[in-house]
Amino acid sequence: MKKERALTIPSATVSRLVTYLRILEELELAGEPRTSSSDLAERAQVTAFQVRKDLAYFGRFGKRGMGYSVALLKREIIDALGLNLHWPVIVVGMGRLGHAIANFPVAAEYQFEYVGLFDVDPQVVGTSIGNLPILHMSQLPSFVHERGVKMAFLTVPPERAQATAEKLVQAGITSILNFAPIVLRPPLSENEKDVGKTKTWHNVTVENVDFLAGMKRLAYYTHDPKSPAVEEV
Amino acid sequence: MKKERALTIPSATVSRLVTYLRILEELELAGEPRTSSSDLAERAQVTAFQVRKDLAYFGRFGKRGMGYSVALLKREIIDALGLNLHWPVIVVGMGRLGHAIANFPVAAEYQFEYVGLFDVDPQVVGTSIGNLPILHMSQLPSFVHERGVKMAFLTVPPERAQATAEKLVQAGITSILNFAPIVLRPPLSENEKDVGKTKTWHNVTVENVDFLAGMKRLAYYTHDPKSPAVEEV
Repeated sequence: MKKERALTIPSATVSRLVTYLRILEELELAGEPRTSSSDLAERAQVTAFQVRKDLAYFGRFGKRGMGYSVALLKREIIDALGLNLHWPVIVVGMGRLGHAIANFPVAAEYQFEYVGLFDVDPQVVGTSIGNLPILHMSQLPSFVHERGVKMAFLTVPPERAQATAEKLVQAGITSILNFAPIVLRPPLSENEKDVGKTKTWHNVTVENVDFLAGMKRLAYYTHDPKSPAVEEV
Repeated sequence: MKKERALTIPSATVSRLVTYLRILEELELAGEPRTSSSDLAERAQVTAFQVRKDLAYFGRFGKRGMGYSVALLKREIIDALGLNLHWPVIVVGMGRLGHAIANFPVAAEYQFEYVGLFDVDPQVVGTSIGNLPILHMSQLPSFVHERGVKMAFLTVPPERAQATAEKLVQAGITSILNFAPIVLRPPLSENEKDVGKTKTWHNVTVENVDFLAGMKRLAYYTHDPKSPAVEEV
């Protein structure tokens, strides 16, 4: 059942919805037909109030004591997140990290599918992972255009990440999972006009996966036990 | 110069401080002696207002037009985040991901240092990465105790992550960088008393690094262009 989304969903809520989905998958595997905001809250390590607030963003107003059907709620979150769609993905940068990522069974996670792998290193181009050959970067634009790919995982070295990201966007990629420990920015020519304002890379979404940043955040929380992590609600 | 931190720093601010620090490192490398909230904002892809609000958490009230010394601001953020301290780290779980993480030069990032690697697989225990041998998990408690290690990177398979995390905490670890796509929770015996409330794993901080979650968030933002990511300020 598709519900209209009347409100823009805050990014923190999107993150929690992904977590709730994972929990619902576990409940389904365990044969649990129903759950509640308290149950989800405990498993997600948030408050029941936060759970109900998050689910309200796509029209899911639970009544206390009534709970939710695991299967239905799971389906609603899948639809809300767009995970009912097929997501062909390319991996760009086939070093050690790129190989680790490309070997991961993402197809087990809904309808994500690696369809292309790219690099510039002649030692690596032409080799394969499973039945996917590693292609040269020069073939990327036509590949992306012909296959209608929108999503790329960026696993090149940090010093190449910005330039490569700009090439991806030029080629038609609209969503980038960035593994480099840098902030990707819109190309400089756009920046010059808007110094000081928040700029969006029009129609491009970047998500960062950065363990070094996580490591530094850990140092903060560990060295100052008087300042526990406070999630903004 | 150490400033008193009067306010608890929200987790979103801590994340941005880590980003500002990286930007200040780049500016320093580029030989730039000064910066401003607008400059930091543009590079971090946030508003100048957000930058000033974040820096105010540790007493840094900038005046418009005055800007900041790159070296001083960098030092202040380093101290505020606890990155002026030595952080010995153990890596637990030496599969493909654990190897990729253990091979990463974290020592280039302030004072993090891998001091121990652990696994249970006899094929792997006894081999080395650099000059660090992979030890058996059974040796972990005494190792952690003798070396006073507080921080662990958890790179075991998802189905082992919860049990391993509990062992780590029992052994004296207080901060975990969790690479498994699950939510780590306090041990069950604590949970039973507090169903429905937010539980903190007393004195234990967990940071998650989860590219699968990032991938699913990307699907959300990509499939609904009317709902751009809205960062809560």
